Amino acid sequence: MAELAKTGLAMRTQLTAAGEIELSLQEVPVPSPGPGEVLIRVEAAPINPSDLGLLLGPADVSSAAVSGTAERPVVRLKVPERFMPALQARVGQALPVGNEGAGVVVAAGAGAEALLGKTVATLGRAMYAQYFCARSADCLVLDEGVTAAEGASAFVNPLTALGMVETMRSEGHKALVHTAAASNLGQMLNRLCQADGVPLVNIVRKPEQAELLRSQGARHVCVSSEPGFMGDLVEALAATGATIAFDAIGGGKLASQILTAMEAVANRAGGEYSRYGSTTHKQVYIYGGLDTGPTELTRGYGFAWGVGGWLLTPFLQKAGPERAAQLQARVAAEIKTTFASRYTGELSLVEALRPESLAAYNRRATGEKYLIAPQKGLASG
Amino acid sequence: MAELAKTGLAMRTQLTAAGEIELSLQEVPVPSPGPGEVLIRVEAAPINPSDLGLLLGPADVSSAAVSGTAERPVVRLKVPERFMPALQARVGQALPVGNEGAGVVVAAGAGAEALLGKTVATLGRAMYAQYFCARSADCLVLDEGVTAAEGASAFVNPLTALGMVETMRSEGHKALVHTAAASNLGQMLNRLCQADGVPLVNIVRKPEQAELLRSQGARHVCVSSEPGFMGDLVEALAATGATIAFDAIGGGKLASQILTAMEAVANRAGGEYSRYGSTTHKQVYIYGGLDTGPTELTRGYGFAWGVGGWLLTPFLQKAGPERAAQLQARVAAEIKTTFASRYTGELSLVEALRPESLAAYNRRATGEKYLIAPQKGLASG
Repeated sequence: MAELAKTGLAMRTQLTAAGEIELSLQEVPVPSPGPGEVLIRVEAAPINPSDLGLLLGPADVSSAAVSGTAERPVVRLKVPERFMPALQARVGQALPVGNEGAGVVVAAGAGAEALLGKTVATLGRAMYAQYFCARSADCLVLDEGVTAAEGASAFVNPLTALGMVETMRSEGHKALVHTAAASNLGQMLNRLCQADGVPLVNIVRKPEQAELLRSQGARHVCVSSEPGFMGDLVEALAATGATIAFDAIGGGKLASQILTAMEAVANRAGGEYSRYGSTTHKQVYIYGGLDTGPTELTRGYGFAWGVGGWLLTPFLQKAGPERAAQLQARVAAEIKTTFASRYTGELSLVEALRPESLAAYNRRATGEKYLIAPQKGLASG
Repeated sequence: MAELAKTGLAMRTQLTAAGEIELSLQEVPVPSPGPGEVLIRVEAAPINPSDLGLLLGPADVSSAAVSGTAERPVVRLKVPERFMPALQARVGQALPVGNEGAGVVVAAGAGAEALLGKTVATLGRAMYAQYFCARSADCLVLDEGVTAAEGASAFVNPLTALGMVETMRSEGHKALVHTAAASNLGQMLNRLCQADGVPLVNIVRKPEQAELLRSQGARHVCVSSEPGFMGDLVEALAATGATIAFDAIGGGKLASQILTAMEAVANRAGGEYSRYGSTTHKQVYIYGGLDTGPTELTRGYGFAWGVGGWLLTPFLQKAGPERAAQLQARVAAEIKTTFASRYTGELSLVEALRPESLAAYNRRATGEKYLIAPQKGLASG
């Protein structure tokens, strides 16, 4: 193994008091792994929606102004003033980015030597960088024959999909609803639910997204833009028995429409009139904010309902380390099938800061996903 | 004990297909208590907001048209057409009313003889009536010296107030917020929280309601109509540490404002910026619908939050019979202090159907509460 470099490039995002997001590449010292830690030479890190929220915030990508050099570009993006009050906590901090990724272990601290030379994936918050130091316990060792690119998305989407199914079961539901269901995550959830025999109702915006999911074996797909949507949704809920939904959209009326349709199914059984609505608990978890507007709840579904936020990290904490390890082992075993991710393009750290790249990955087009390859296009490693 | 009457009067509410709520008094057979049951001669039954929802529904009280006789009046109220679709399940059913009440046990089935002659309170769904047959296990025996009128509200408000505090504790919170806090229930919760040393943030609409609560010892009262409301609320939440709220209003922005203020307090501690918001779970339970409009959630409080319906009956089912019995025993012991109810007026069954009475109790003015006295004004018992 060649001698390690002393410094490496790392992407930073900083919000200035003047209301600009400044993206840059900084040359930072390569850390030495302590006891139980490993140094990963990062080969691949995906750009997830959860990364974009930190990387770009609510900045206007069309305002991108580039300065710096070709090898160390600096990009500035304007943040509309109305968003600034909510962002005060991050002003002036040069924050690392990149929630997950994979690479090769190039150095190991005491007790972690077994990982030397292995290709591992990890969650890291700073993986848009050439090097990342992780606790060996947090690393998922990829099987022989699995590349870093194939293993780069082994945490966020796979564990989120598994977490939705686990949450469904632990809260006593037997089928689930997913919105924005043609997303990379949605397609993965569709595969997972088919593999595990869990009935899934997919909600998408456009007919072509419904076609895509059906071509991947989805049985229940409802198109929210179609006039018959509510009727279709009621039928799909009745057929599956779904009483819990995971919603990536957040704003608008969709969460409330789902609860309304669930209540209609619950009341089909008939029985005595109750002005408190059915006793069937109906739950919507909001885990994203594709629509940042207010959530409007009409509450025409009695009192046995809940709407709330859902995130992967609290789910994993609640599940406990043993269960989390079981879930991760399953991801590793099925990383080329159930939990495979496909990428639209691969970008070097420099390429990731080009205005046309920002525009491409910020579009968050259905099913599109980009990979950052931090070792790509560099003169030396 | 005099011989029992064969029939007794009972109030009924019926929604007609033509869109009218029809209120009447029907002469129904007096039931014979079976094994383990008792027959209660109902002396007092309160008109709770939860009763009005069934009794009047969304009918327009100003449209009251009276027919029938002086002793058997029939009142018809128009229901605005937009509410009819949601009410289809009750069309054509003459429904009994009156969720709770108290009276004297005048007959007892096998195994329930010990209750004969006792004054008892119970939950009943049909207590706007001269007689009600209850399981003896569901009866709360009132102490000597407690009248039926004093014990009539021993279930709904006391157990709701206790249920709020229990829910707060079981979900890991240490203080709570209550809206519409000058209501009869709110005043009771204020007394309960003082007795138990639970910090309480009261939210009211008007300054005079704040004065009323403060005169009863409330320490934290915020007036939602005042310009400094959000600042006051943040300070009260910071002082108490409240991260759970019970909201009687439902519609509008108040639930979301409470979550926003809780998040502001959670972020005061500082620490690293997270675009997912604080990790402090913030909860609002909606248990009423004084504002029937949509609930608007701005979601500017990260992902650690929940909004949902809350009702007494599911709470009691979850708490289990043993805990429920402990709570009821406490209510009986403190029925003249912590859990005392005061009434604005006492109405006979006939008086309760007068248009001016309907208008009075339907106003739901703060702290006003009426009692129905089913034995009042009748020629014979």
